[in-house]
Amino acid sequence: MTARIKGVLAPVVTPFDNQRQPDTARFVRHCQWLVDNQVGLAVFGTNSEANSLSLGERIALLEALVEHGIDPARMMPGTGSCAIDDAVQLTRLAVRQGCAGVLMLPPFYYKGVSDEGLYRYFSEVIQKVGDSALRIYLYHIPPVSQVPISLALIERLLRDYPQAIAGVKDSSGNWDNTRAMLEQFQPEGFDVFAGSETFLLATLRGGGAGCISATANVNPAAIHQLYTQWQNADADAQQAALDAVRGAFQKHVMIPAMKHAVAHWSGVASWANVRPPLVELAPEQGEQLIADLRALGFDMPGMKAA
Amino acid sequence: MTARIKGVLAPVVTPFDNQRQPDTARFVRHCQWLVDNQVGLAVFGTNSEANSLSLGERIALLEALVEHGIDPARMMPGTGSCAIDDAVQLTRLAVRQGCAGVLMLPPFYYKGVSDEGLYRYFSEVIQKVGDSALRIYLYHIPPVSQVPISLALIERLLRDYPQAIAGVKDSSGNWDNTRAMLEQFQPEGFDVFAGSETFLLATLRGGGAGCISATANVNPAAIHQLYTQWQNADADAQQAALDAVRGAFQKHVMIPAMKHAVAHWSGVASWANVRPPLVELAPEQGEQLIADLRALGFDMPGMKAA
Repeated sequence: MTARIKGVLAPVVTPFDNQRQPDTARFVRHCQWLVDNQVGLAVFGTNSEANSLSLGERIALLEALVEHGIDPARMMPGTGSCAIDDAVQLTRLAVRQGCAGVLMLPPFYYKGVSDEGLYRYFSEVIQKVGDSALRIYLYHIPPVSQVPISLALIERLLRDYPQAIAGVKDSSGNWDNTRAMLEQFQPEGFDVFAGSETFLLATLRGGGAGCISATANVNPAAIHQLYTQWQNADADAQQAALDAVRGAFQKHVMIPAMKHAVAHWSGVASWANVRPPLVELAPEQGEQLIADLRALGFDMPGMKAA
Repeated sequence: MTARIKGVLAPVVTPFDNQRQPDTARFVRHCQWLVDNQVGLAVFGTNSEANSLSLGERIALLEALVEHGIDPARMMPGTGSCAIDDAVQLTRLAVRQGCAGVLMLPPFYYKGVSDEGLYRYFSEVIQKVGDSALRIYLYHIPPVSQVPISLALIERLLRDYPQAIAGVKDSSGNWDNTRAMLEQFQPEGFDVFAGSETFLLATLRGGGAGCISATANVNPAAIHQLYTQWQNADADAQQAALDAVRGAFQKHVMIPAMKHAVAHWSGVASWANVRPPLVELAPEQGEQLIADLRALGFDMPGMKAA
């Protein structure tokens, strides 16, 4: 069995051209830049606008990464979908391509569903994929999905599928929940990733695996540095510096704000494009973001198009 | 221009075989039974488990209905999707096949999105479909989608696309909202459908177009009767009788409860099958439902398999 993926991963932002079609070349280039900065690729996450992409678009983008020589051992594509067959198709492709794992949303249309129903969903995916190389990271993001992954559900899945159920991304924003996952499941080899670098230091101190964070798209090196230096004397100061950068983005809607920053530092205006229902930052918002980031000494070295 | 669809429509429940694949023959048969009972076909609604179907499955089911001679003028398929391209593809097919309209969810993954973003979503669908025969019914179901269709959004869409924006299904369960839609937009020819027959009489008294209701799958004739007799002296008594039947279903999760009733009255056990994250009724729940319905004198004439 190969080593589990750990550390810092980015839910990779998806570039669109001016017709709002995926810009594959720019996507591959951004993924390469992230990997060069030691950050793993949680492509097709919330911050990737994955649910605004058709299944065919996600398949094509994943295939392009592998074709361009990006190491699939650094990839954890999001594959959860409301329709099981869509989830199975994309998960099968990810496993076949050698991805380190998949990050799976629960089916998120129906609300108030039972743990029994969610258990059946994940069971059916695991059985239909039917591959011992499958590693599922459960995606707990109740503020967006509105469908939580409870501790009881994790316990049952982990008992019945100890090999396939590999970990969780906790984007609840609730540290008590992350701590409970760390205490209850991390000792069994179930890898807990914080849903943002805000909780990276606390998660590592609790024995966790790392974080999967939007801001890793724009601030990868500094976040990875804390991952490697969390036992250093200046770890709390490093965490505070990461929090300040994130704070500048969080004054705005996160996805357009990150894309605005990438557009600014790459010099490629189309990077700011988003798909509806998202909208780009207003000009004054964009100016404030860049001013706030400059005041913090923020930069994106190597991002400028050659 | 052809007459707009009015009256009572059912968000048609989707039958699955024991491998939980769509049972096309049974689906066509149920649609024919509904049409024979004067009820229109809002296939691929919430109660159809539409978001648990892949796009390919929805396309195949819609094509099967037309191939089997069901009149597309009685159809209002659900076509809203998180990904615009999926919505465009299914909407184009519906228009090409001559459907009376399409019922469109907003993109429902991101929460707290702006009206501007939702406006861009619907605009892009209308422009990409690019067919003057398109009639969109906006689907307002905040308890499930968590993404509301505001009055301000309707006003803006109706101003810019008076031909394509044809009406709304209001499943808010909030009569004040339905009344506001009736007062503000119905006079402009924007057809307001109540989201359940609970508000059918009130909607018709307010000048509305009818209702699109789960229970129309199981109680079509009685609901259609109130639609035709709402000015009769016994209209309130008819409404009360409809409410009693709906109440028996609403003691349970609606979709498995309706499928249980169809399974019972058709004698086809597989009708009870649902896809995860939904689960079938427990045996004791099923027994209670049937007992409650029998006590009300409920029946599904013509449902028994030949």
